[in-house]
Amino acid sequence: MTRADVSPLVRAQGVTAPAGFRAAGIAAGIKASGKLDLALVFNEGPDHAAAGVFTRNQVKAAPVLWTCQVLADGRLRAVILNSGGANACTGPGGFQDTHATAEKVAAALSEWGTETGAIDVAVCSTGLIGDRLPMDKVLAGVVAVVQDMAGGITGGDEAARAIMTTDTVPKQVALHHPANWTVGGMAKGAGMLAPSLATMLCVLTTDAVAEPAGLDQALRRATARTFDRLDIDGSCSTNDTVLLLASGASEVEPSQDDLDDAVLRVCADLCAQLQADAEGVTKRITVSVTGAASEDDAVVAARVIARDSLVKTALFGSDPNWGRVLAAVGMAPVHLDPDRITVSFNGSAVCVNGVGAPGARDVDLSATDIEVLVDLGVGDSQAAIQTTDLSHAYVEENSAYSS
Amino acid sequence: MTRADVSPLVRAQGVTAPAGFRAAGIAAGIKASGKLDLALVFNEGPDHAAAGVFTRNQVKAAPVLWTCQVLADGRLRAVILNSGGANACTGPGGFQDTHATAEKVAAALSEWGTETGAIDVAVCSTGLIGDRLPMDKVLAGVVAVVQDMAGGITGGDEAARAIMTTDTVPKQVALHHPANWTVGGMAKGAGMLAPSLATMLCVLTTDAVAEPAGLDQALRRATARTFDRLDIDGSCSTNDTVLLLASGASEVEPSQDDLDDAVLRVCADLCAQLQADAEGVTKRITVSVTGAASEDDAVVAARVIARDSLVKTALFGSDPNWGRVLAAVGMAPVHLDPDRITVSFNGSAVCVNGVGAPGARDVDLSATDIEVLVDLGVGDSQAAIQTTDLSHAYVEENSAYSS
Repeated sequence: MTRADVSPLVRAQGVTAPAGFRAAGIAAGIKASGKLDLALVFNEGPDHAAAGVFTRNQVKAAPVLWTCQVLADGRLRAVILNSGGANACTGPGGFQDTHATAEKVAAALSEWGTETGAIDVAVCSTGLIGDRLPMDKVLAGVVAVVQDMAGGITGGDEAARAIMTTDTVPKQVALHHPANWTVGGMAKGAGMLAPSLATMLCVLTTDAVAEPAGLDQALRRATARTFDRLDIDGSCSTNDTVLLLASGASEVEPSQDDLDDAVLRVCADLCAQLQADAEGVTKRITVSVTGAASEDDAVVAARVIARDSLVKTALFGSDPNWGRVLAAVGMAPVHLDPDRITVSFNGSAVCVNGVGAPGARDVDLSATDIEVLVDLGVGDSQAAIQTTDLSHAYVEENSAYSS
Repeated sequence: MTRADVSPLVRAQGVTAPAGFRAAGIAAGIKASGKLDLALVFNEGPDHAAAGVFTRNQVKAAPVLWTCQVLADGRLRAVILNSGGANACTGPGGFQDTHATAEKVAAALSEWGTETGAIDVAVCSTGLIGDRLPMDKVLAGVVAVVQDMAGGITGGDEAARAIMTTDTVPKQVALHHPANWTVGGMAKGAGMLAPSLATMLCVLTTDAVAEPAGLDQALRRATARTFDRLDIDGSCSTNDTVLLLASGASEVEPSQDDLDDAVLRVCADLCAQLQADAEGVTKRITVSVTGAASEDDAVVAARVIARDSLVKTALFGSDPNWGRVLAAVGMAPVHLDPDRITVSFNGSAVCVNGVGAPGARDVDLSATDIEVLVDLGVGDSQAAIQTTDLSHAYVEENSAYSS
């Protein structure tokens, strides 16, 4: 166990827990509801190292294209995030909107006394795909949110709330390392949550001293094991972005291992918060595959099961219909032997070597947490995917989102 | 247009429409409900040529394994089919049950005066995965269903009803070719319907004179364009089987092209019947992809869209949320340029070259049939996938199937 493993995780804190960071969240009028919809995270330094990972969707929103570009130098001073509109599929005009937003943030920060260029400002957007943002409100909001942040009040909570869409609760957490450095983070995401990267917006901050390359390694390792293995509905957003900003304000330079561990734990905790608040969730499901020929096989098999509508509806109904797990895994493009597959639900064997076990139909799945364990019996590798059930509430929420 | 294209399709007829076929369907007590659950299709000859296609699921039910084996010689005399249990994941005992069923059918037919070996009897099962069949009822039922068929009453309707599970209506159709030969068929399937082959049970009959190789070609070409492109929920059964039996009783030997066309049209019609009766269906959706770099790309892209839970729930809500179509297709592993994608719903453009079209949010999708057309703009190939919406009724039906 490394030192980070014993560090406490504090969910009452987020991106402003590490030294050197300020944040704010305001209602800029982008959302018709009048709720908080514009967030700013600002790195006061002394360092401005940063790393990011982005959606693998070929259809990328304008803010994703922009932020990829400005991260090329491994430096970020600020992140501006809006809910109420994804600014995806908005063409060159949408990209100009993102650029104009970054310019406005830079100008407002410079006016406040922190010389900043648009190239140091990441932009993230979330909400409905396909509409242009109300730029008058966004630009006025940028001025207001910089003023709010400059007022000195720690606005981490408001920032975490301002990026919510169908989320019902804000998600944030901080890890305080015994060696006096901290990692904090906030995330949003409740639907269109799938794995081909981060599948939501997430900003992580740390006051550790770290180079962009070290941050990049820590972030890629963590997301590969956490957000990449969360799969609510198999749908991958056009806007997914995970950013990690380091201020160096603690003056502590942790080992790469310690940094990796701390970032992993913060991502894992945010991931669990995303799962618990997924659209329509009534069950938190972990699909674990063991005995696979390779870790890739284990991930693929677990993902196929986790995405199967018949498995997900059965678990919504607390129905131990293990045959659907067998039917699902049988379609996974992995090495398997049908006569060696063993399945258990919450520790009770329901299928042994491909054949139903006594009492399999009577396993009680009425509790909220369900573990589906599938042992393929053909190797030594394993992996797990986190998912949720397919409920009436999921259908309801997603059949009336844009209207 | 070939001659088959103008031949009428008659849905009041099925497997007994071609000369040389008898069928029967009875209630053997396999289903607790007492509904019809055992069907027999018998080929009186003079020919007994046959072909089949089976699930690509690596987890194959006992009757699939059996029927693959007995089809090796390209001959079938009879098909026995039961609902009320899939006989999948039942181990060696389940395979012995299938074998015993075929033996019993052969014995009963021989006793009736038609010398038959078990090797000429295909077996198909459908229902819940994982339970052994009540063999006392199955074997007694075999005797009864052979007697029923021997009585001489045309039992095609009863056979089509006896293979239903969550289907609400039987599915059958016959095509009468002007050259005096006929193709008939019956099918079942309402859920666990996806494409990696047939994904349901289907028996086709013809009185044409044809060799097994010609039947095999006609069947593979037809299923690749019909059942393989029907995708209700992305879940592929352990039991999918499509069989084509030829009696030669018409004494007409059609050209391969005419046979291909006729089998394709019968499969396409049964496919439409399956779509219309899919579990929880409120919308019949066709996802067409044009302008793809290859037909494979078009199929893959259309399938990714057709499987996307967010697209399916939006269409359930009659919501023209085209951004979800863009997000879905962006994850398809195909060649595409986000700035050249054009989407229309029921003929109304909602997205042109990757950007929303005026009035896109106002397109009326309240009717039952919805066509989603996605032009990738990067090539000349096209394909379509048939699917349905993701509704409350689908969730309801599948959260309480085995209990």
